[in-house]
Amino acid sequence: MTDTPKDRGVLILAGGRGERFWPWSTAARPKQLLPLAPGGRSLLAATVDRARRLVPAERIVIMTAESLVEACRREAPGAIVVGEPVMRNTAPAIAAAAAFFGPRTAFAVLPADHAIEDEAAFVADLDAAFGRAEREAVLVTFGIRPTHAETNFGYIRRGLAIAPRVHRVAQFTEKPDRERAEQWVASGEYAWNSGMFVWTRATFMAALAASRPAIAGQLADLSFAPSETSAFEQALRERFPSIESVSVDYAVLESAPNTVVIEAAFDWDDLGSWSAWARRQPRDSRGNVCWGDAVAVDCDRCVVVGDGALAAPLRLQDMVVVATAQGTLVCRIEDSEHVRKVSEAVRARGSA
Amino acid sequence: MTDTPKDRGVLILAGGRGERFWPWSTAARPKQLLPLAPGGRSLLAATVDRARRLVPAERIVIMTAESLVEACRREAPGAIVVGEPVMRNTAPAIAAAAAFFGPRTAFAVLPADHAIEDEAAFVADLDAAFGRAEREAVLVTFGIRPTHAETNFGYIRRGLAIAPRVHRVAQFTEKPDRERAEQWVASGEYAWNSGMFVWTRATFMAALAASRPAIAGQLADLSFAPSETSAFEQALRERFPSIESVSVDYAVLESAPNTVVIEAAFDWDDLGSWSAWARRQPRDSRGNVCWGDAVAVDCDRCVVVGDGALAAPLRLQDMVVVATAQGTLVCRIEDSEHVRKVSEAVRARGSA
Repeated sequence: MTDTPKDRGVLILAGGRGERFWPWSTAARPKQLLPLAPGGRSLLAATVDRARRLVPAERIVIMTAESLVEACRREAPGAIVVGEPVMRNTAPAIAAAAAFFGPRTAFAVLPADHAIEDEAAFVADLDAAFGRAEREAVLVTFGIRPTHAETNFGYIRRGLAIAPRVHRVAQFTEKPDRERAEQWVASGEYAWNSGMFVWTRATFMAALAASRPAIAGQLADLSFAPSETSAFEQALRERFPSIESVSVDYAVLESAPNTVVIEAAFDWDDLGSWSAWARRQPRDSRGNVCWGDAVAVDCDRCVVVGDGALAAPLRLQDMVVVATAQGTLVCRIEDSEHVRKVSEAVRARGSA
Repeated sequence: MTDTPKDRGVLILAGGRGERFWPWSTAARPKQLLPLAPGGRSLLAATVDRARRLVPAERIVIMTAESLVEACRREAPGAIVVGEPVMRNTAPAIAAAAAFFGPRTAFAVLPADHAIEDEAAFVADLDAAFGRAEREAVLVTFGIRPTHAETNFGYIRRGLAIAPRVHRVAQFTEKPDRERAEQWVASGEYAWNSGMFVWTRATFMAALAASRPAIAGQLADLSFAPSETSAFEQALRERFPSIESVSVDYAVLESAPNTVVIEAAFDWDDLGSWSAWARRQPRDSRGNVCWGDAVAVDCDRCVVVGDGALAAPLRLQDMVVVATAQGTLVCRIEDSEHVRKVSEAVRARGSA
């Protein structure tokens, strides 16, 4: 690979199963492939569109499950789409996919299934992060200013200020309980961990080697041209089964001394539930979000989705009704983060 | 037709559209064809099974819409199934279908879509009604002892007692408002009008001629053998379009002087809503009625139906969730009698 400072890249992690959007999401069409983004685009397509404002398509690598490679290719023309034979979480995925970039290439790591509307602010912040990663051996993360005491996100505690909106990271944390989340948000020292990062391959692999030498040792020698996707996948089939499955947060970021956090100027949401998605959708005069084949009769503040099936609630308030060919979900909006219980129950009876 | 006193018949009225069971019911499969009866039978099949305890199959006439003739034939092997070219409500339907019976033949009129469990009591009461209709020129109706102040049924006020559990009818009434229904039930003088009747053709046509001479005049001369269904339907195509559409209750019973009411010893329900149907279904340990492809997760007292689609409610109480290929209905059980609003809204947007 060429290796000039401006030879930037983007790695999109698109391997999630996305069960929180059951029944809209399926094994063949998980959350990142659903048309949850503005304009009826999939979240992956919207992520690719944002990435293309940073780098050309041929500098975008998409890591996904083997079974989703073809579907992802349709959403990302011109990008390098590769499939993992077994899912090993984000640390091995990033270390492996970095083989498409040169050692001094800075690349952004972007989850495929998050929502960002202010793309101009996104591009400006990412550009600043690329520059910093190219100048210094740092792991750049993006912190989101919390709007509420969310318990489904990890948090980043800011340390020493090193530039406007840029701090050393004092601490990465796991998802907190309610009380702790409230304390953190009140303190003003914490930001949500967006799961987006920028670093060079050399800086990342050095940090991984320090904390998880086994993983780094199994993947550090890989190097592939954009056209060598088959060779890459063959290497993963040989190496991934024996590799530890671990997140980049846990394996690298929580222990690395050279992490910095940029306070994002853009909006962000991980769309972790039907209610999170609905917050970003247009509503009718009674506050309902209706998508697709949906008829809400005398309903208020409901989320009604019909895709391949007709959803028709009557006289409901604050409910989620999603009808698809796979099944129909009905719950209170406040329970939409427990949807996984339903997909598990359905799987347990062998239906879907 | 032969015409001996024991040459009894049964007329089953199966022309209803049954929109209250939307989305399970469709134009091609209205309520009477849904598997709402015990043992997974359709209501029509269950009605035919009951009728066959009274008369042989070839003495059963089923009047339905032209478009439903084939479907009804499958549910009623051996019966005489005929289609109305246009629907003209129950008075013309009964007067026309009576052409398959001799003038002195007593026949029962049974709606195709009601629920009755105690078949032995049903057979005994119907047998008594046949006997009375064969002996006297009376119009026999069946009154159901009210269990609550139902506002969706017509009521019959009892007059002079003429035998155990048999009275002259003092008055037929339309559906009452809540206050009136409560008064009537408290009085002990009223019974629900079950919509089931027994009379001879001669007695019925005489009563019709007295109250609606035009209808009687257009249909009184018809007479057909069981095999002459095509000739019958041809006659209806010629005569029904110009005939008044009117119910037998309004056209005949409310004005006839020779009506009697038998207090039914059997249970009865017209299954006018999802909640009425659910009252007769087995429940799980949390009070849910689950039918077909249904997974209720942490739900209580819900009605969950999946037919050609999976219904999967989460953490709901006292709700109806029905998923079919035609669509998904979600409402509170107490709102299930307003389901017509949904089917109308869906039709208005041209979806189903």
